[in-house]
Formats: sequence, C-alpha cells, structure tokens
Amino acid sequence: MASITIIDIAKMCGVGVTTVSRAINDHPDISEETKAMIMKVIKENHYVPNNSARNLKRSASKTVAVLIKGITNPFFNRMIQMFEKEIKRKKYSFILQRVDEHQDEIEVAIELEKEKRLKGIVFLGGYFSHSKEKLEQLTVPFVLSTIGMAPEFDPTEFSSVSVDDFKESYKIVDFLCSLGHRKIAIITAPMDDSSIGKLRYEGYKKALEDHGLQVDSTLICSMKDHLESYSMENGYAVTKDLLESGEPFTALFAVSDSLAVGACKAIFESGKHVPGDYSVAGFDGLDIAYYYNPSITTIRQPVEEIAAETLRILFDLINKKQTHSHKIFPGELMIRESTTRI
Amino acid sequence: MASITIIDIAKMCGVGVTTVSRAINDHPDISEETKAMIMKVIKENHYVPNNSARNLKRSASKTVAVLIKGITNPFFNRMIQMFEKEIKRKKYSFILQRVDEHQDEIEVAIELEKEKRLKGIVFLGGYFSHSKEKLEQLTVPFVLSTIGMAPEFDPTEFSSVSVDDFKESYKIVDFLCSLGHRKIAIITAPMDDSSIGKLRYEGYKKALEDHGLQVDSTLICSMKDHLESYSMENGYAVTKDLLESGEPFTALFAVSDSLAVGACKAIFESGKHVPGDYSVAGFDGLDIAYYYNPSITTIRQPVEEIAAETLRILFDLINKKQTHSHKIFPGELMIRESTTRI
Repeated sequence: MASITIIDIAKMCGVGVTTVSRAINDHPDISEETKAMIMKVIKENHYVPNNSARNLKRSASKTVAVLIKGITNPFFNRMIQMFEKEIKRKKYSFILQRVDEHQDEIEVAIELEKEKRLKGIVFLGGYFSHSKEKLEQLTVPFVLSTIGMAPEFDPTEFSSVSVDDFKESYKIVDFLCSLGHRKIAIITAPMDDSSIGKLRYEGYKKALEDHGLQVDSTLICSMKDHLESYSMENGYAVTKDLLESGEPFTALFAVSDSLAVGACKAIFESGKHVPGDYSVAGFDGLDIAYYYNPSITTIRQPVEEIAAETLRILFDLINKKQTHSHKIFPGELMIRESTTRI
Repeated sequence: MASITIIDIAKMCGVGVTTVSRAINDHPDISEETKAMIMKVIKENHYVPNNSARNLKRSASKTVAVLIKGITNPFFNRMIQMFEKEIKRKKYSFILQRVDEHQDEIEVAIELEKEKRLKGIVFLGGYFSHSKEKLEQLTVPFVLSTIGMAPEFDPTEFSSVSVDDFKESYKIVDFLCSLGHRKIAIITAPMDDSSIGKLRYEGYKKALEDHGLQVDSTLICSMKDHLESYSMENGYAVTKDLLESGEPFTALFAVSDSLAVGACKAIFESGKHVPGDYSVAGFDGLDIAYYYNPSITTIRQPVEEIAAETLRILFDLINKKQTHSHKIFPGELMIRESTTRI
C-alpha cells in the first residue's frame, strides 16, 4: 500500500494543501466546519502528518531525551521506566538514546538537540569530563544523573543527581574492615579509565588507610577490557585469575553487583564457599543481589528518588524556575548473607 | 548561548543561504573552493544543520527502527546490542523505541514510520495478533523477532524469526518427567493473556499428557498482575504462595529464567533446597541462569543467531531480494545443577 500524502488528502477533501495544513496545525484561518471535515478524512485514511514538515512549522515540539551509557546495565532499567512515565505525564515526548562506551555523549546530544528540537536532556551513567567550551554548545537544560564527575568541574555550569561514589564505597569497605578483614581485594575499572569505578576505588583505598591497612597492588583487580564492563562474565573471569594467583585474601569488594555475582560463581567453582571462605560485597542494589544465593551485601542506590529528583530539576530548569543545583542522595548499606566476621 | 542558524553561517561566509544549503547537501552547483570555505566556518562554529529541513530535502534517510516490548527483560539486551552494531555497519541509523505492555506496537510503528521515514522495522518480543488490515498500514518491510504468533496468521503477510516456544517448552518439561517428576508446577502468564507464556504453557500441558500425567490446576500458577511480568520479584511472590498452599510438588518450571531465580529464592527462604527438595527449570538462557547458585537448567535461545537472521531477512526485504520467510531456530536444553532425578 502506497503512503498517503497531504496532496491525496487535499484532493479527497476538494481543498488545497494549505487548507489541509491549516487544519492539521490548528491554524486560526480556517472554519471549524472545514477543519472537522478534513480531520475526519485524515482519520478515515489513517494519514499521519509528516513530522519533519510539522516540526519546521511549529515553534516548539516538547521532547526530552535520555542519553544512556551502557544500556545493558540492569541498574538503569528501573530508572528508564520512571523517566518515561514521568516525562509522558508532563505531556512531553520521550526519546531514549543509547550511547556507546567509546562514543562522545555531548556530540550525540548536540546532534539530537537540533534534530529533535529538544527541550531538555538527561545524561545517565558514565563519567563526565567534557570541556566548558563543549558543554556550551548545548543550548537546552540538562541534568547529569548517576554520573561520576571530574573534580575540576564548575558546579555553576550544570546540574547533577547521584550518590557520592567515593563515600559509599568507603562505607562498604569500612564495613568489611569492621568485620575483621585485613586482606580485601577489589574488582574495579582499569586505573587509566575515568569512570565511577575510579571513584569507588578511591573510597576503597581511603577506607583501608583509615584502618591502618596497606593497599596491596596484587589485590587490585581490573576488569578485563575484552569483556563487557561491570558484567557477571567480567567478575567471573577476574576472580578466577585472582584465585589462581594464590594471593591470600578473605574479602572481595566488586564495584557492581553483577561483578559480585560473577565473583561468587568463580569462588563456588573453585570448591570454596561464600561467606565461609570469602566474604563478597557488591555495589548498586540490583534485584539480583537480593535474589542471589547467598544474598549479596551491597550499597543500595535509591534509584526511584534519583530519577524523580533528576526530572524535578530538569523541568525546573526548562521552566526557568531555578539555577543549577546538585543533589547527592545517601546510599544504603544492605548487610546480607555474603559477608561474615572473621 | 543562542543557537547558530544557517542564516548566521551565510552571513559569516558572505554568501546566500542557498549556497550554504548546497554546501551542506553536497549539491553539484557549488565550487569545491566555496564549499570547503563554508564547511570550515560550519565546523568552527559548531553549527549542526537542522535535520528536519534536511530530511525534507533528501530523497531518502536510511533508518531502521527496533520496537521492543518490555525493555526491562534482560533477554533482549544482547539482541539490541547486535542489532545496533549490524544496522550501523550497514550505514543505516538505528532507532530503539520502547513500547509499553499495553500499547499497540503497530500504532507506534505507523507513527514512527512517517516521522522518521523508516526503511524497515524489527518488532521484538510480545505476542502478535493484529489484523491484516492494520498490518497493511505499514508500508515498509518488517520482521517479527522472538514473538509469539496467533495461529490464524497468514505466513505470506510477514516474516518472522524465533524459537518454537511450544516445542522448546515441551522439551524441558519432558526432561523433568524423564527425571521421574510427576508433580510439576508451572509459573506462566495468566490464562486470559496472549503472550509467549501461553505457548510455553501449551508445551507444558502436552508434555504432561504424553507422559500420562494429569494437568493439575492447583499447580498452574499465574504471574501476578500487579508485579512486573517475567521478573524475579514475580517468581518469588508466586512461589511463596505455592509453597504456603501446601500443594505437593517436586519440580517447578518457570517460563523465564528471571521467574526461576525468584522461585529459588522463595524455596531457600522456606528452609528447603534446590534441587534436593525441588527441581527448578527456567527458559531463555540468560547469563544469570548460569551464574546463579545452583546454576539453573533452562532452554537457551540462540540470541546471536536470531538477531543476525532477523536483520538478514529485513535487509533482503528492503533490497527486494526475497519474499516473506520464517525461520525457527532450535533452542538448547542446558542441563545444570537446579534439577535432579527423584
């Protein structure tokens, strides 16, 4: 079936194309009667007005985009659902745009902003270290949500909502130390990688230091480059190597729950137990950390609150009700079965 | 910073808007020299041509959309990654569009087809029972991928790639029977719900019948409406009710791996063991089914092959190389630790 055009509709109605366009765009220069007749024909023929043309005509389309780094991380699923629901409730359209790990999210956003005439943008996940000059190319409000940030950033230039990755990581490693662990391994991002993994590593280091423990480089395990980052598969492979190295340790902190699940699997396969032989802790508060056997001690990020606050700030910026602001939510240490005192 | 327009660029270059437009659109009526000068100014000023206008000018934008029902199902994550990679390799743009469980995916597709001038569509997940009349409103090729289908469908009207949900479900329940189980519970979609859950339930029923076993309605457990379908949380809640009902059973088949994980958790909480007290089987072949403790017996869907074949058929249809076709991939029974002989 060939696509129906505005010209076909005009012919069917016995009017000009301009008149059809006026009906579609609620133009005042058309009688209610003619408009009703045209809209009826449009509906009966399932004609969908071409939005490329409509966007040019209209002064404002109302669209908010969510740009997400690493859509495969289950951590973001509930946030996306919340974003979509709330954005629709505000009568805005919602665009979900995935950004590759090695893609520049600002470039993607600049392109999207023009193409879709966005009203606002949420950046979700990853690490943010773009130049001021580059950020200024974005002309619509944006909020960084659950994103690690370079410390040199000027907080008056942008808004953000997240947990304090450094502090929360410190909290859970401090907890492991308080259980008597002295040899605590970590699975984290490679040292040259700027990601939230780095902030979480810094928190680990500080907690060890505050307990008078040396940071032992043989217990710092980087995720493998060739495997998906923060994944179960990666946690499994890294922990397998660690166990095979023979380096003694009694606890393992993985900077995501998925990594922690993979770590447990490697431990079981080596004939050892969690937490009997090794305590294991994760980060994020995914469902699977609760449903795993044993359930996994973790830092729960308050996903719903973070998502709601992100949109509250974004819509306030869109409506020019406020200047940039930064909200840090506390994470919650969830003590479960995977960790024990030694 | 105000947005730079094509008019600003024209002024900076000392040329007319039409000349700038010709440079952007690679029009032959412009000297290479002038074009290079204009493109330099465009680049220096970070001007992004407005694509709404460009789309109208261009005869063909090359975009393929993937419409997904239930983006929160981790089963789709790897498929989406594969789709994105392959579509980009073909030099097409990729749009990922989420469809709510209660939304009509054809309506969404019709709208999107016009708005984005799509070349093709992949429908991912869910159950397909739309009228021929409705499907004909889609004027571009589309392929149904991992979708349950109403049997009254005319196979010359569309293309599809999936496993045989009925047959694969039969296979795993047949396996449970062969281990000596006689009281096999199932967690599936509500009976009035048309989804792949229904096809998998039919396979369960047939396997029991072929082993001379009665289908026991007290062991048919529907997912709970108010919880996310196919989720761990749902599997947990349903299994908790089943255990509390006191109905005797020795094996449980959950129609997704996430449901199976939730079921195991409920069993552990009641002080029982898997597979010592209850054998548990899932469906899909998610990573978590392998990494869970115990690892979970399941049907592995060949995700990579399904995604590759879906796109092969779609691009052949786009290039008019073939008529509609249907490909069924075999699933693989993965026998793991969660099931045992009684």
